[in-house]
Amino acid sequence: MSSPSGDSDASGSSGDVPSAADIVTVDDVEAARERLADAVHRTPLDGSTTLAERSDADAVGLKLENVQRTGSFKIRGAYNAMAQLSEGEKEAGVVAASAGNHAQGVALAGRLLDVDATIVVPEVTPAAKIEATRGYGADVVVEGGDYERSYEHALELADEKELAFVHPFDDECVIAGQGTVGLELVEQMPDVDTVLVSIGGGGLISGIATVMKAHDQTIRVVGVQPEGAAHAKPSLERDEIHMLSEVDTVAEGIADARLLEKTFAVVRERVDDVVSVSDADIAVATTLLAERAKTVAEAAGAAPVAALLSGAVEVDGERVAAVVSGGNANLTDHAELCRVGLERLGRYAEVRLELDGWPTVLGGVTDVVEKEGAELGVLERTRRTAVADLNRTPVRLGVEGSGLDHLRNVVAALDALDGVSVVRHSLDTEI
Amino acid sequence: MSSPSGDSDASGSSGDVPSAADIVTVDDVEAARERLADAVHRTPLDGSTTLAERSDADAVGLKLENVQRTGSFKIRGAYNAMAQLSEGEKEAGVVAASAGNHAQGVALAGRLLDVDATIVVPEVTPAAKIEATRGYGADVVVEGGDYERSYEHALELADEKELAFVHPFDDECVIAGQGTVGLELVEQMPDVDTVLVSIGGGGLISGIATVMKAHDQTIRVVGVQPEGAAHAKPSLERDEIHMLSEVDTVAEGIADARLLEKTFAVVRERVDDVVSVSDADIAVATTLLAERAKTVAEAAGAAPVAALLSGAVEVDGERVAAVVSGGNANLTDHAELCRVGLERLGRYAEVRLELDGWPTVLGGVTDVVEKEGAELGVLERTRRTAVADLNRTPVRLGVEGSGLDHLRNVVAALDALDGVSVVRHSLDTEI
Repeated sequence: MSSPSGDSDASGSSGDVPSAADIVTVDDVEAARERLADAVHRTPLDGSTTLAERSDADAVGLKLENVQRTGSFKIRGAYNAMAQLSEGEKEAGVVAASAGNHAQGVALAGRLLDVDATIVVPEVTPAAKIEATRGYGADVVVEGGDYERSYEHALELADEKELAFVHPFDDECVIAGQGTVGLELVEQMPDVDTVLVSIGGGGLISGIATVMKAHDQTIRVVGVQPEGAAHAKPSLERDEIHMLSEVDTVAEGIADARLLEKTFAVVRERVDDVVSVSDADIAVATTLLAERAKTVAEAAGAAPVAALLSGAVEVDGERVAAVVSGGNANLTDHAELCRVGLERLGRYAEVRLELDGWPTVLGGVTDVVEKEGAELGVLERTRRTAVADLNRTPVRLGVEGSGLDHLRNVVAALDALDGVSVVRHSLDTEI
Repeated sequence: MSSPSGDSDASGSSGDVPSAADIVTVDDVEAARERLADAVHRTPLDGSTTLAERSDADAVGLKLENVQRTGSFKIRGAYNAMAQLSEGEKEAGVVAASAGNHAQGVALAGRLLDVDATIVVPEVTPAAKIEATRGYGADVVVEGGDYERSYEHALELADEKELAFVHPFDDECVIAGQGTVGLELVEQMPDVDTVLVSIGGGGLISGIATVMKAHDQTIRVVGVQPEGAAHAKPSLERDEIHMLSEVDTVAEGIADARLLEKTFAVVRERVDDVVSVSDADIAVATTLLAERAKTVAEAAGAAPVAALLSGAVEVDGERVAAVVSGGNANLTDHAELCRVGLERLGRYAEVRLELDGWPTVLGGVTDVVEKEGAELGVLERTRRTAVADLNRTPVRLGVEGSGLDHLRNVVAALDALDGVSVVRHSLDTEI
């Protein structure tokens, strides 16, 4: 897919792209691993029969970076970069911009290495995230209406106070640190055929692909992006960095607009393909990770599993590893994503009823739900709307069942009740 | 705490209690492990810095039986029992009664051992649970208005069709199978000081305590029960089986009314203490397991962690293992439990407002929430109630923040707005 660096027919626009080998090698990653040995967890690879069956893979392993320290892989790159600062730089301290996982990675690395860390976060950052970052001992500076402005402010602080700036991905040491995920993976699943990794700025996949290709050129490394932030595929197709004018996805952790110079150089040489998944696919993946693998993934961490389940990548009979890169989901947001996932799986429906008698016919409604073995999560008397018959009482139900056929039966049974009409429901077909 | 079997001053009522050694020994558990080697996972022990810090323990390890096959430890006991049936018994098949984890354990064991399994479930069992059990290849019979009646029916079927009955806990082979959790644990945390295990019927703790006491008599084994099903403590105190007249707890998996003969005999000799936790404690534990350990536990599985966090058991400076026995939570119920947990942690509040102007002053409300760095999960215009000033509009907010102080500030800032009164909120103090 990508031209080898220096290939005579490389496009003009990529003529200035450095060679991946000049940015990061597997030796750099091995060296990073030694630095990280006492600082990070070797995360488990959890086999999932359910995901293998649903994707026709021979085996699926989940590389659980959501149980890494700070809840994501970001500590690996940040620590590897900060451990290599000079004594003077360490004494001066570092600065970074992030409202998310990079913030906590830099903060914890700072504490472990005894380096002062300042994190610039945008004004909209929830207090809970600021607390978490401060909890690791970092100074948090709230500045900027959006991430871009916080990033600029961090660079200004770096300049003004002579602090080292820790980039979230476009840095050789950061990439090498993230690559240590790959070293663990080849030990845990040496005969892996395909590795699925989400792409935001491209740091994680650059590191992992470097290891995989050094281990075995035939291992396929596939990047996964949300449809609303799918910049890497056009970058590979045009062989130049493609920047999106806007991004829009539930997967905040990978809501980036572009690769940068170094990650582009590595991705174009070492990543085999990039696919995209919808936010709905991500919701389903998040749901099945919680329900079957009993693991809490943030949306960005569930994206590789979404690629597996949605068929965006073909893995028939293969041994597949999906990197669950992080788990720092607000639990309320996670629950909401799972509700959407259950709805997409045909296991949750919103049903709007009109009742001829309130509350007399309610007993019939709850009897039907119970008799059908469905679960009633919500029952709410709602306000009348213009379209409703003013003699009838509108009611909203939230019903869970074992699948689409089951819930269709429940809806039909409700509609068949005397004094009850189903006026609308969220299943995708007519009753 | 308990009298050694045969002790001359054992109470009359326990004179007939068999010796624990006659029921299960560590050799039985070792033999079970060999039988189970290819059938079950060796589950991970996940260290949790957060839980260690919050409980003043030196270290806390979570034994994650929620990622066991079928989502709980129950497969271990069921498989060990069924593997030891005679060829004739295997050909005839087995029967069990359960709407929960035991059902799935017996069903999968049946599939693995090529033994037909019939599971009797009560009429109220959700269709989704029946599907899951059928998915493992079992026949499901819906019979009985409650579990007791299903249990009786299963015994009738066993008798009538000459099927072996697989008891959920009061069986030597089942106890030995559950004990294999303990064998893994002593390898994973050989210097453990205290092991926390939930008690329903007592099968799991009987197996684990047998291993722990054989490994090192000084290891403390503590049982954990919900306040609404706390039968084991009075049983130990009176040295006879105490049966509750009713049970009431969110932890369905351990909502048992009593130990039975074999588990009582083992628990009284080998378990050091039993503590109880409230459903609210369980909610907080479930929340922190999801948020920090990124793991989905069912309420019964979170109970040992609840004991740790609530201070029900003192673990200062100790190395502690908590067995997270299962993860088969309905995701909607799990989300609801986490919302309660966040409320208990002072991080979620319901706030009732009255607005002088609708919708004009709403902008002020959302500005305050954003400026304070809180998150607005719910904003709903509600119905007027008798106590409300009829010229004002009642509004309900669901607000998340970093802690009690933070949310108190948010509530105070809302109340200080022109045209806005806070009429009620769920934080535990006055504004």
